[in-house]
Amino acid sequence: MSHAQPTARTFSSGFTVHTPGRGFTDVSERLCEIVAASGIHTGLAQVFVHHTSCSLLICENADPVVRDDLERYFARLVRDGDPLFRHDAEGPDDMPAHVRSILTGVSLGIPVRNGELALGTWQGVYLWEHRSAPHMRKVSVTFIGD
Amino acid sequence: MSHAQPTARTFSSGFTVHTPGRGFTDVSERLCEIVAASGIHTGLAQVFVHHTSCSLLICENADPVVRDDLERYFARLVRDGDPLFRHDAEGPDDMPAHVRSILTGVSLGIPVRNGELALGTWQGVYLWEHRSAPHMRKVSVTFIGD
Amino acid sequence: MSHAQPTARTFSSGFTVHTPGRGFTDVSERLCEIVAASGIHTGLAQVFVHHTSCSLLICENADPVVRDDLERYFARLVRDGDPLFRHDAEGPDDMPAHVRSILTGVSLGIPVRNGELALGTWQGVYLWEHRSAPHMRKVSVTFIGD
Repeated sequence: MSHAQPTARTFSSGFTVHTPGRGFTDVSERLCEIVAASGIHTGLAQVFVHHTSCSLLICENADPVVRDDLERYFARLVRDGDPLFRHDAEGPDDMPAHVRSILTGVSLGIPVRNGELALGTWQGVYLWEHRSAPHMRKVSVTFIGD
Repeated sequence: MSHAQPTARTFSSGFTVHTPGRGFTDVSERLCEIVAASGIHTGLAQVFVHHTSCSLLICENADPVVRDDLERYFARLVRDGDPLFRHDAEGPDDMPAHVRSILTGVSLGIPVRNGELALGTWQGVYLWEHRSAPHMRKVSVTFIGD
Repeated sequence: MSHAQPTARTFSSGFTVHTPGRGFTDVSERLCEIVAASGIHTGLAQVFVHHTSCSLLICENADPVVRDDLERYFARLVRDGDPLFRHDAEGPDDMPAHVRSILTGVSLGIPVRNGELALGTWQGVYLWEHRSAPHMRKVSVTFIGD
């Protein structure tokens, strides 16, 4: 179940996601294409989004109701316009977007095996936009492996 | 306090955890054994669980009451059977398991130093099963270093 | 937008943060200095804090009110002295510190590009102390790249 490899290489790439406002964009397919282009067989893919009001996460990919439920859960956990928040220069969704981003993360390490992103059967990689308005989000991917 | 290394190698491994249902399984020992087998002296261990209803986390390892408290806290934060959730095909713990997994993560990067997993004194690595029923969980470990 | 590299190197470093008690310490500058010292041009920086009652996170770095709001939000989400918690040997902030650490994480992977930490314009890396009293926190940094 294990393989020692003589040397590792680095391969860097990235892409931009145009989000339609709050909601999920599946980026699994784009990541799989980049793995194939990298030529990496065994190693690690590190995915990173360069913003503080969206996040990258792994979520169940079969039933879209899971993402609907997630959105409803987080809308209740971190309420838009909560009077607790003083940072609201960009609107009632400004500070909640930062909190959501911190609770769900901007950086993911995913194994690469047999030249493919080794996601579980029900795992998809999503960019979660937390702002109400559409945004352009920059994603970087770093592969290290043999 | 720093060392430059001429080349890096990749070493991949993994194991399966049979969980007894909701609760914590300490996987620190298994990870330490894999580090020893890898021959990696300095670098990074990336641990990943291939599922969307359990998580991998670092938790205080001395007092088991910490894990009891964590479980009670999350049971209150993400209630089983919450009427907010519509995705309940597999039962009242189905959607809460996905939310808990997203809040606590499925991917961990841990430094390797002197041929050992460089955990802090009170840090243990746990697989947290969020489903009520027992499950078989697949964990992958990727080491990169010299 | 992508570069294949012939070989990867490892560079390990670290530093200590003396926290003044609960609150944020910006460690971005220290990380940037270590990247420069590493000589790594393209790859990955993995940052890790060796404790279970503080965390490492990426947060908006322009308006300090964001961190004030975060602190107020988490103080309400995970209440000090909550009677739910039984692990309170070190005080009412003991167990809440563990929960906050797990919700926000102790490990971050950040891309390195052109010899620099590739943070977004508004991203800062912070160590978040969750205990009320001052603490000494050990941070490890692992660079892998060319």
